[in-house]
Amino acid sequence: MEPVLLRACRGESVDHVPVWFMRQAGRSLPEYRALRGSGSILEAIADPELAHEITMQPVRRYGVDAAILFSDIVVPYHAIGFGVDVVPGRGPVIAEPFRGDADLERLRDLEAVDVAHVTRTVDLVVADLAASNTPLIGFAGAPFTVASYLIEGAPTRDFALIKTLMHTDPALFDRLVDRLVAITIAFLRLQVAHGARAVQLFDSWAGSLTRDEYRRFALEPTARVLAGIADLAVPTILFGVGTGELLDLMATAGSTVMGIDWHVDLDEGRRRVGGRPVQGNLDPARCLGGVAPGVRAAREVLDRAGREPGYIFNLGHGVLPSSDPHVLEAIVRVVHEEGRAGL
Amino acid sequence: MEPVLLRACRGESVDHVPVWFMRQAGRSLPEYRALRGSGSILEAIADPELAHEITMQPVRRYGVDAAILFSDIVVPYHAIGFGVDVVPGRGPVIAEPFRGDADLERLRDLEAVDVAHVTRTVDLVVADLAASNTPLIGFAGAPFTVASYLIEGAPTRDFALIKTLMHTDPALFDRLVDRLVAITIAFLRLQVAHGARAVQLFDSWAGSLTRDEYRRFALEPTARVLAGIADLAVPTILFGVGTGELLDLMATAGSTVMGIDWHVDLDEGRRRVGGRPVQGNLDPARCLGGVAPGVRAAREVLDRAGREPGYIFNLGHGVLPSSDPHVLEAIVRVVHEEGRAGL
Repeated sequence: MEPVLLRACRGESVDHVPVWFMRQAGRSLPEYRALRGSGSILEAIADPELAHEITMQPVRRYGVDAAILFSDIVVPYHAIGFGVDVVPGRGPVIAEPFRGDADLERLRDLEAVDVAHVTRTVDLVVADLAASNTPLIGFAGAPFTVASYLIEGAPTRDFALIKTLMHTDPALFDRLVDRLVAITIAFLRLQVAHGARAVQLFDSWAGSLTRDEYRRFALEPTARVLAGIADLAVPTILFGVGTGELLDLMATAGSTVMGIDWHVDLDEGRRRVGGRPVQGNLDPARCLGGVAPGVRAAREVLDRAGREPGYIFNLGHGVLPSSDPHVLEAIVRVVHEEGRAGL
Repeated sequence: MEPVLLRACRGESVDHVPVWFMRQAGRSLPEYRALRGSGSILEAIADPELAHEITMQPVRRYGVDAAILFSDIVVPYHAIGFGVDVVPGRGPVIAEPFRGDADLERLRDLEAVDVAHVTRTVDLVVADLAASNTPLIGFAGAPFTVASYLIEGAPTRDFALIKTLMHTDPALFDRLVDRLVAITIAFLRLQVAHGARAVQLFDSWAGSLTRDEYRRFALEPTARVLAGIADLAVPTILFGVGTGELLDLMATAGSTVMGIDWHVDLDEGRRRVGGRPVQGNLDPARCLGGVAPGVRAAREVLDRAGREPGYIFNLGHGVLPSSDPHVLEAIVRVVHEEGRAGL
């Protein structure tokens, strides 16, 4: 029997609603904090035994229906030497941000050896999950979102540099995106080759774009990435934050499932993506007030989800570091017991 | 003849499209940087001669159709001693954030003397603007957005503390909001009494709410503020960022004009607010790439604006500090020459 997560991704009927949480691995778990030293997150990702253990922690604790690789969207760019660091409390920082054609050479094709540590982690996790038939979700950043990091050089609210580049030198932006598409396809293919059974594409910052900008600068590269792995026949999930205005466009990129953030009511989100399977969308902040309010919030999401097939419960963004794991445990229980999509 | 801004706010026909820019005063202007010392922004606001001059700088340079008071939404809370500072590059920081009923006492009614420096600035600006018949726009923060600062204690992306409070102790949240409604009404009435001819209510962070949350926690207090100044008969503008999912609800709060941020296409935004006059919505990042791309972007917005009456050109958020004033100058020219709403 195929795992319930994969069946739900394909819109098939399931005997319970599958659930996993974006950023389920990491700082919200005491066992993670106990395990991690003071090294950088990129160092932890580079250690397959450690990354394997961190990936498994939430699967054991929560009984979620999928593992997601402990990694970061900048990992392949770090691996090819673009000069990326992930600064605690701040996010990815680029020593020499992308400025022009000369920087394209710093974005060479990704080789298997570059990310051997990642595929080794995948191997370990997949072996560990075999007994329970739990799928591992691989992931990558979508080209626009990765470009925003490479150009801005640090997390931003304004997207000033990338938007200026997009609108003043779109051909250069396209050449950058071509490199990112190739790297992203290679990175996802490697993860699937080693046993990832679904992949999520994070276009986290697509919501900073207008519809015209999304059409011109983000949709086609995303579609190319998805087309570049279509032959692998694994379900794909496309997700971004603040994408309410874009969901109908994003749904044309060709993913199997659309992730819906918490700003959009789930029934409305499902309508916007034309009935495609959806994943989401509990506001992560609703997991902070204790078990009872968290469960109440989860039930509100289940109500909005309805009973159509093709639904995966998740948060509408990543788990907040201050989340109480007991709340997430209770939510998994409620989703499994009360979720009724596709029965 | 009434100023074109006020006519447009009321949906009346105008001989050119009025334009002003959120945060038109401040760091993007070299004459501002030359004038401001190293003191905090709250000190500058507390100096009426200085605040008057800063308010006037963009009016002189750009020939915009309105001045907006150089101030900050935390000013009244600073004035009554809540313990607010505005930290450069960070934003409002509260030494002792709102935690419980005991903190309600720190939110006493606002008296005219508390903000005598602000009304003195209004007096000076209004006197200065009389010759050109240019209106001054006063402003305040909407209750939810102010509450987010008072509870979180600093700018946040997660709104974790306020959402937890809203959902675990809604009655306490309501008591807090009652205080904020009273203070906001008093603050706006004082600005209008001294000559502000329109007011903008910034519910900047309303976009962090789901529709259910907006309905329960933000709509009614906003409506109460607007009702509390309705007898003054000045146009009111309600604006927030990332509010695409909420525009139809926000439009029921009773403002004369709805501000539309840049995520929503203006024609669609106008549809969502039921034909009410709208203001917006050029992405501030489009003003960074030079005059020609900035003008092109402004023309895109004018095209979306259509020719219906009831339109005010503005950005879809505040001017970015790195903006080139020459771009904004060119945009004002293009809006005045080519804007055709309500002819």
